[in-house]
Amino acid sequence: MSEILATYLVHDHNGNLEKKAEGIALGLTIGSWTELPQLEQEQLRKHKGRVVSVKELSSNDRVNSYLGNTVTRGIIQIAYPSFNYSNDLPAILTTVFGKLSLDGEIKLIDLEFSNDLKLAYPGPKFGIEGLRSITDVHHRPFVMSIFKGVIGRDLDYLTDQLKEQALGGVDFIKDDEILFENDLTPFEKRITEGKRILEEVKEETGHRARYAVNLTGRTLELKDKAKRAVELGADFLLFNVFAYGLDTLQSLAEDKEVSIPIMAHPAVSGAVTPSEFYGISNELLLGKLLRYAGADFSLFPSPYGSVALPKEQALGIRDALTVADNQFKSTLPVPSAGIHPGLVPLLYQDFGNDAVINAGGGVHGHKLGGAAGAKAFRQAVDAVKAGESLTAYAQKHPELEVALKQWGSVEVTT
Amino acid sequence: MSEILATYLVHDHNGNLEKKAEGIALGLTIGSWTELPQLEQEQLRKHKGRVVSVKELSSNDRVNSYLGNTVTRGIIQIAYPSFNYSNDLPAILTTVFGKLSLDGEIKLIDLEFSNDLKLAYPGPKFGIEGLRSITDVHHRPFVMSIFKGVIGRDLDYLTDQLKEQALGGVDFIKDDEILFENDLTPFEKRITEGKRILEEVKEETGHRARYAVNLTGRTLELKDKAKRAVELGADFLLFNVFAYGLDTLQSLAEDKEVSIPIMAHPAVSGAVTPSEFYGISNELLLGKLLRYAGADFSLFPSPYGSVALPKEQALGIRDALTVADNQFKSTLPVPSAGIHPGLVPLLYQDFGNDAVINAGGGVHGHKLGGAAGAKAFRQAVDAVKAGESLTAYAQKHPELEVALKQWGSVEVTT
Repeated sequence: MSEILATYLVHDHNGNLEKKAEGIALGLTIGSWTELPQLEQEQLRKHKGRVVSVKELSSNDRVNSYLGNTVTRGIIQIAYPSFNYSNDLPAILTTVFGKLSLDGEIKLIDLEFSNDLKLAYPGPKFGIEGLRSITDVHHRPFVMSIFKGVIGRDLDYLTDQLKEQALGGVDFIKDDEILFENDLTPFEKRITEGKRILEEVKEETGHRARYAVNLTGRTLELKDKAKRAVELGADFLLFNVFAYGLDTLQSLAEDKEVSIPIMAHPAVSGAVTPSEFYGISNELLLGKLLRYAGADFSLFPSPYGSVALPKEQALGIRDALTVADNQFKSTLPVPSAGIHPGLVPLLYQDFGNDAVINAGGGVHGHKLGGAAGAKAFRQAVDAVKAGESLTAYAQKHPELEVALKQWGSVEVTT
Repeated sequence: MSEILATYLVHDHNGNLEKKAEGIALGLTIGSWTELPQLEQEQLRKHKGRVVSVKELSSNDRVNSYLGNTVTRGIIQIAYPSFNYSNDLPAILTTVFGKLSLDGEIKLIDLEFSNDLKLAYPGPKFGIEGLRSITDVHHRPFVMSIFKGVIGRDLDYLTDQLKEQALGGVDFIKDDEILFENDLTPFEKRITEGKRILEEVKEETGHRARYAVNLTGRTLELKDKAKRAVELGADFLLFNVFAYGLDTLQSLAEDKEVSIPIMAHPAVSGAVTPSEFYGISNELLLGKLLRYAGADFSLFPSPYGSVALPKEQALGIRDALTVADNQFKSTLPVPSAGIHPGLVPLLYQDFGNDAVINAGGGVHGHKLGGAAGAKAFRQAVDAVKAGESLTAYAQKHPELEVALKQWGSVEVTT
């Protein structure tokens, strides 16, 4: 059966989940059923939405009190036949959560694509294996740092900061997602000058960091701009996918000439994901759909910082990005925000090798500067991989020592 | 000053709105300020975000109880200098609500564009005046009906339904937003056959209804498809803008060759708008931004039906679409869902002449059929415009009489 199976969390005010589910399954497909003549039923059967499961959840006093009503919480699963929509994400989202998104307390939790439908999606062009191959980093988590305070700064400032980070040994460096086309640090210059600096650092140290440049502008011009970036030698693209739409990411990922990895940033996704009543789950939006649409990296709030996700959601995103799949490569999880070197053992325990340790303030805020900040992260990773405690390892590594004094550390017992 | 002024509703857990506002204004622009040397402060001053106002709101026990914390509610306004972003909606949304959307309980309520920035946006190509000119309907609300139950049906079924609605005298007929490219009723055939039928009805009755065909498919192919629709003689385009992004709507509206009105559908917007804690306000998303981006119509949930908006939000959308503006034409408000002829006096009282009375079930569910259902709406409008009560008018108009018996009516006293 070629279909999309949608899972919803509902808070129903009418106390009848079965009826609600039937109403959705019909209302979002053929409209009506029981009153149709037999012949029409036969014609329309293959278009009819189907209630797959209805499961009532325990009542929640806090929720009832907030909603001012005793609501029935439940998980509903409905299958939508593929005869009804073109196999693209705008059509699918409009079908399964178009009008329905406006219909009271209902949240889209998951979508399962039947195998034939999945085939239309590209998945990551490189994925974790491809990124390991590009970087020759095989047996540890990657380390990434983020530009900080580059708005209003000139190209010298930006490339100095790039150099610092690269000298510290990070694998990836990402643009600030709020750095757009501008006169001081234009897109094309960032690419060419960035590349020159990173090659210089490679000459000096043997280490070649990769720089993700922020692909921005008008939606319909992005593909040409991405191709231009590739021509100029860009390493990776950073992309604020939720300001543009998943379908646009997919078009970038599908294009053979956009032959570099794409890093998806979660900007604006917080307008959709955090409510327990409305919107779309983090696991689906920042996990499965980004992977299907072709993101090589997915950034999402770590469970540790001030801008934090509940841990089960962060791990749920990771799972969706990396679960074994017979079609798609894995997307590299990048739990971000609030990360300092002292958290590396915890990050490693929670996210393992196939993740990125990503920091901004935890690199640039280091008392000995950005290069030292980056080194401290690499040292923390080395410590964890060597099975040593951070404290012990810091005795031989001054950058890590300073970082631990500055931010503390969370040792974990495995 | 060239800037965007963003207004947020915040629920702050730290009890210091001023500090939160300062943190946002710096964090989303230059990053830091007080510790910078004088010279750098001077260089960066024009890039610095500015707190414009901070207003504490009364505490809300229900909210505190739900959030499990006594939070400080407030309205914060921050100005973002235009030096920091390109003047397009993805860049602006990423700047003012990118990372910030992920930062706890914060909702984007409004954006004010300085006049020079507004100039980059097209606004509606036709707007209310243009639609009145196209239709020659000048002194009453428009009437629109929606296809029902057309999924899985063939072109004959669809055009029969189209004809019924046109015979009933509606001004506009919109595709079901979940009708995508499909073999039974392909996009191009819907346009050409639809046009043929509507011209036939015009020959017969003198009335030419306009049909909004659903523009769907992959984002990067929409513009070509829209141009093809125009070539084939499409009246209007229906567009699920929130499945694609506001910037794509803008590109359609900007294109001179897409020379027909665009009707924006709110599908998927309910993932973003309903929470009081998170997301983007209805007034901004379905009101101001749709107008700036160039929608000629904006559909939104009426305050009357089962899928209802709070009335002040529905009226707020209307105001944002129609408030006098020295640059933009007005977008036609289409309060939708739950509309039957008996609600027309109330709709007229709330939304006035410059709105669309839009119904699906209230047309097709009429006991005498869709044409009678459409007629009943036109009769209800005529009654209201003549200053007669529906009940009195129904005595001379059997379609309205049947509708009032079927659905009841809400008389209003003005």
